[in-house]
Amino acid sequence: MADLGEFGLIARVVHGRSQPASTLLGPGDDAAVVSAADSRVVAATDVLVEGVHFRLDWSSAEQVGRKAIAQNAADIAAMGASSTAFLVGLCCPATTPVTVIDALVQGMWAETDVLGAGIVGGDVVRGDSIVISVAALGDLQGREPVTRGGALDGDVLAVAGRLGWAAAGLAVLSRGFRAPAAVVSAHRVPEPPYAAALAAADAGATSMTDISDGLLADLGHVAEASGVAIEVRRSTLAPHQRLVDVGSALGVDPWTWVLTGGEDHAFAATFSRATPLPEGWTVIGSVSSGSGVTVDGAEWAAADGPTGWQAFGK
Amino acid sequence: MADLGEFGLIARVVHGRSQPASTLLGPGDDAAVVSAADSRVVAATDVLVEGVHFRLDWSSAEQVGRKAIAQNAADIAAMGASSTAFLVGLCCPATTPVTVIDALVQGMWAETDVLGAGIVGGDVVRGDSIVISVAALGDLQGREPVTRGGALDGDVLAVAGRLGWAAAGLAVLSRGFRAPAAVVSAHRVPEPPYAAALAAADAGATSMTDISDGLLADLGHVAEASGVAIEVRRSTLAPHQRLVDVGSALGVDPWTWVLTGGEDHAFAATFSRATPLPEGWTVIGSVSSGSGVTVDGAEWAAADGPTGWQAFGK
Repeated sequence: MADLGEFGLIARVVHGRSQPASTLLGPGDDAAVVSAADSRVVAATDVLVEGVHFRLDWSSAEQVGRKAIAQNAADIAAMGASSTAFLVGLCCPATTPVTVIDALVQGMWAETDVLGAGIVGGDVVRGDSIVISVAALGDLQGREPVTRGGALDGDVLAVAGRLGWAAAGLAVLSRGFRAPAAVVSAHRVPEPPYAAALAAADAGATSMTDISDGLLADLGHVAEASGVAIEVRRSTLAPHQRLVDVGSALGVDPWTWVLTGGEDHAFAATFSRATPLPEGWTVIGSVSSGSGVTVDGAEWAAADGPTGWQAFGK
Repeated sequence: MADLGEFGLIARVVHGRSQPASTLLGPGDDAAVVSAADSRVVAATDVLVEGVHFRLDWSSAEQVGRKAIAQNAADIAAMGASSTAFLVGLCCPATTPVTVIDALVQGMWAETDVLGAGIVGGDVVRGDSIVISVAALGDLQGREPVTRGGALDGDVLAVAGRLGWAAAGLAVLSRGFRAPAAVVSAHRVPEPPYAAALAAADAGATSMTDISDGLLADLGHVAEASGVAIEVRRSTLAPHQRLVDVGSALGVDPWTWVLTGGEDHAFAATFSRATPLPEGWTVIGSVSSGSGVTVDGAEWAAADGPTGWQAFGK
């Protein structure tokens, strides 16, 4: 990549792509200008590091690019907003083949295309390893932001999207396998149900969060922010047969993946009991007064795993 | 830093700080919500890598944090916008002392305080070296964005801010010296004249850019984007005596720093001849039909340096 120079690389990330109508001034200047139609902008950032968050022998560069956008877009959707624009900072060793950068960028644009968003700015710099920084902007389209802090005693708890698949895929890859494809793909490229998150906001969800650290860990944030207790009932969460099979092959309780596996970027939300649930949402529990998260009335104690995924040890 | 865990680290970056009124929903949820009063948001990103863009034996962590914000804010100001919010991605080795992270963050907040902006989101991850990714958001406050593409034949060219000081400071540090303090400080913490950039936009500047790669390189972008020729006259740009002295001590032509040194984050803008220049701006040349950038009628050929700074060789 050293051959291209900085401007050549930035051009590869942002120039010559078609931008959505919300991009009022595209890349190529000191900064871009993006529409914020309702006078507010939702903003989040996530950083992915090679060897920590992804491995290029486990995922293609295109899959990594796609995931980098998807996990940021999931944060925007979890507020009840639609992604409009992304800024991408790419740090790569000088020896990184340009084909890897092109594939990363291709994957990023593939996911922004799904979202109807654009990559409006970029910076490409030299460093020891590949570090992908994404900042995402979103449009609430007049909605009130749905925070983690609004769950109320008496609400129902529901989820949209798959749980545990990405964690099962990571377990498979960690043991040196490449199949079954369904779980491995779930790890490589999450498919957050963006539309379900927006539908939840429209339906009046009292709280919502992206499940990135694991269901119980993320519900813990909701319980804490809302000052409530959250009860998860396993009867409505039974692991898919595919996860049961993989768990049995690897000697892992599939419930660990469902309850504590991150990176699927499903959504959890709470709704008043009177609210008809939007399409894609399944009730998995309830909210009451108190604090903490319980599973079938007890604290979850995994035999073989932590309660959530964190980048560092603690 | 491994002792703190991810949530502990993110808390150090964003929690418990006072936010400006433009931060409608601060950090701590899946995403933040920032005011975009005129229904547009300006957005830019810049990444700084330890050993490439900064060295912690040349600058304190606080100075690096301050610079990371300032160089992003300069991109926002160069559009004619006021910075409102920053997102910070921090990648650090697990061995990084928490005091270094605290100082970085302290420096970031010191600069956002100058700007009246807030840090509204953060991500802290583990990696091989320190990589600081900043995304900046800004508010045009009803102004039209001032791009690089609007310079017109007959305009005057003007600059606001210092030129060459940061480059001289870098040269001093590179030779193992720590003084004179004025140039070394200019390298460590740029002081972009943000107010002058906004005044230029208000006065009707036809084009504007942040000078981050060096005056001639950045004017080259303006000339290309505007389809014009730009002439710089050295008579109004004479290097400050301090730069002459440092140049003479190091055996470097100080004009090289003035014309090709980056990182001061001064601003260059073009104005119609009829426009009274706002405070802080000095005419240094003119715009005519044609292409390219000339200095006193000729192409600048530095004896001892490139025409601008790029992160990579070319």
